[in-house]
Amino acid sequence: MRVYFDNAATTPLAEEVFEAMVPYLKNHYGNPSSIHSAGRKARAAIEQARKTVARYLNASIGEIFFTSGGTESNNMVLKGAVKKLGIQRIISSPLEHPCVIKSLKSIEEDTNVQIDWVAHDHLGRISLDQLEELLQQKTKKTLVSLMHQNNEIGNRLSLDKVAQLCAEHQALFHTDSVQGIGYQQIDLQKTNISFLSGSAHKFHGPKGIGFVYINNNNQIPPFMDGGAQERNMRGGTEHTAGIVGLAKAMTLAYDHLEERLEKIQQLRNYLVEGLKDLGDVKFNGDYLGPCHPKIINVSFPDNVKNNMLVFNLDIAGICASGGSACSSGVESASPVLAAIDPTDTRRSVRFSLSHYNTMEEVDYLLEKLKDHAQA
Amino acid sequence: MRVYFDNAATTPLAEEVFEAMVPYLKNHYGNPSSIHSAGRKARAAIEQARKTVARYLNASIGEIFFTSGGTESNNMVLKGAVKKLGIQRIISSPLEHPCVIKSLKSIEEDTNVQIDWVAHDHLGRISLDQLEELLQQKTKKTLVSLMHQNNEIGNRLSLDKVAQLCAEHQALFHTDSVQGIGYQQIDLQKTNISFLSGSAHKFHGPKGIGFVYINNNNQIPPFMDGGAQERNMRGGTEHTAGIVGLAKAMTLAYDHLEERLEKIQQLRNYLVEGLKDLGDVKFNGDYLGPCHPKIINVSFPDNVKNNMLVFNLDIAGICASGGSACSSGVESASPVLAAIDPTDTRRSVRFSLSHYNTMEEVDYLLEKLKDHAQA
Repeated sequence: MRVYFDNAATTPLAEEVFEAMVPYLKNHYGNPSSIHSAGRKARAAIEQARKTVARYLNASIGEIFFTSGGTESNNMVLKGAVKKLGIQRIISSPLEHPCVIKSLKSIEEDTNVQIDWVAHDHLGRISLDQLEELLQQKTKKTLVSLMHQNNEIGNRLSLDKVAQLCAEHQALFHTDSVQGIGYQQIDLQKTNISFLSGSAHKFHGPKGIGFVYINNNNQIPPFMDGGAQERNMRGGTEHTAGIVGLAKAMTLAYDHLEERLEKIQQLRNYLVEGLKDLGDVKFNGDYLGPCHPKIINVSFPDNVKNNMLVFNLDIAGICASGGSACSSGVESASPVLAAIDPTDTRRSVRFSLSHYNTMEEVDYLLEKLKDHAQA
Repeated sequence: MRVYFDNAATTPLAEEVFEAMVPYLKNHYGNPSSIHSAGRKARAAIEQARKTVARYLNASIGEIFFTSGGTESNNMVLKGAVKKLGIQRIISSPLEHPCVIKSLKSIEEDTNVQIDWVAHDHLGRISLDQLEELLQQKTKKTLVSLMHQNNEIGNRLSLDKVAQLCAEHQALFHTDSVQGIGYQQIDLQKTNISFLSGSAHKFHGPKGIGFVYINNNNQIPPFMDGGAQERNMRGGTEHTAGIVGLAKAMTLAYDHLEERLEKIQQLRNYLVEGLKDLGDVKFNGDYLGPCHPKIINVSFPDNVKNNMLVFNLDIAGICASGGSACSSGVESASPVLAAIDPTDTRRSVRFSLSHYNTMEEVDYLLEKLKDHAQA
């Protein structure tokens, strides 16, 4: 049996998304910037996709820009806001994705921008009280960059509350919603967000394509200098098939949101109960609070057997993550868990679900955990 | 009849490339950074692709990095060389692709780097004499950035000569070979190039994927800060299917190089003769000298009929380019031709060929040109 429980790292491409992409791979290959029929066909598909993304987020089409993925979107926003919007301080968290953390390190090296790190508790919950205190220091123009749903432990930030705080204190707000898009409704007319990043391959779309929402009030420069593509905001021939796939995946995600979440929640509940029965299993993150239903991060005692757990699950055909897939080919310890408790020596495993998983697969996982974990 | 003569803007995806990509779109969807079986399958494909690219260029695999395309590669090299290699002067040409020109403008705005523009003649040939004079001024650490084959007029730069000049004067050499890769053998052991950019969709590979060669002696920082992907050089989950497609397209291009070039040359000769027969047709660029066989850029007298030429060809089912596809949704005048002769008011059209074109298609084009051009 082969079972995929690593849907936070990436998701299988939906069959419907593949079918939607094929005509743009095989037949409609024109350069979207060309004015002839082949170009116009590609251009129309891209603008239709932009409309789709804008509609699900209640944004205007002029606020959506396609990129090569979440990493590019995050780099573009953070570096662009510093370059052209006069940002002098960025408030973020050590629990952010490496691409945000490393972009901030670059900014710190290259500029005088001050980086403030907001505190979190033992469940990885961002301290909104401390965020407010930091925002009350209004001497410098500030951008807050906090992720929507944590990729390792699943914690969900209240975008409404943070947006409200930022608005009250005239700070801009960027959220890396790479794990959130396709799994939660976001209404950008109601929630005052300046910048938002999304990536198709986290919601059953293709790899190599993402988008960034840039609120009309905050014009940043291109990150990728080049031609007039994306209304002068992102040079490079557009990845038409990827863009079409992103929009199709987003349509499926939001049109079937409730049933997908219900399915994932059922699988989650069943898995959580089964994990509890194993014995000494610790649930990491705010798993009983607001969190991503697809992500369950647990840890087992530090012993020889558990050190081999992810490896043995792999041999049994089960894909799960022992660290952070985004950070290394050689699996390294989870930077998020290390930031929450650097002294914790337990062995952590992240299981992340999709609506394609089944109860039988969870049963199989639990059975193999009984064999290979010593809890 | 529908005929595609815009292969410098982008090329149709080869059927074999599509077939090679499908398994990595549909089945092998694992995150290449994951250590489980699904991740390893994707990782193996990426490293195999890297080996392929390195082999055809006679580079080492550690010198090849995958990016989202030529624009990203060019941005990465130019901005990275300024940031970490102490480059204080860049010598380039106004005939470069917009992504190079605009990256240089950004660098000029943001840093103290001096940009020197090397001269060209009325055929768009870069003055190597002037380049040498510029290189003799050795007060500042210098990078030369000159494109391999011009995307609008097809002129081919002698990489060997420029590399030689750069080596003699201790300057680094970057070449945008987006139009060259797949159409000319390049041996990076023999030709002393520091950085080279390539893009899959120009040689019948997919859009949204490219690569950059970075010579081992010149370590630049990542442009896209993020995880440890591409050996810490380019964050973001890898576009596995795109990378596999790029390698397959490159394999086809170089394994069939001679027969493809022969076919394109035949089509070119036939088209050139037919164009000459039309009357007052001017061939732009160095079309009798070293040039890209696939690109033919001609101009017709400025009159009402010729102003509508590209439009009327499009109605007749012929895709050709009247300006530069990379620079705008609304076709604008060719920046390269404007740089060569700003006073020229003739109407230019670029026809660009591929080995998929046929003599019948050229006949059809010539027939329609007789109807719609007034030469």
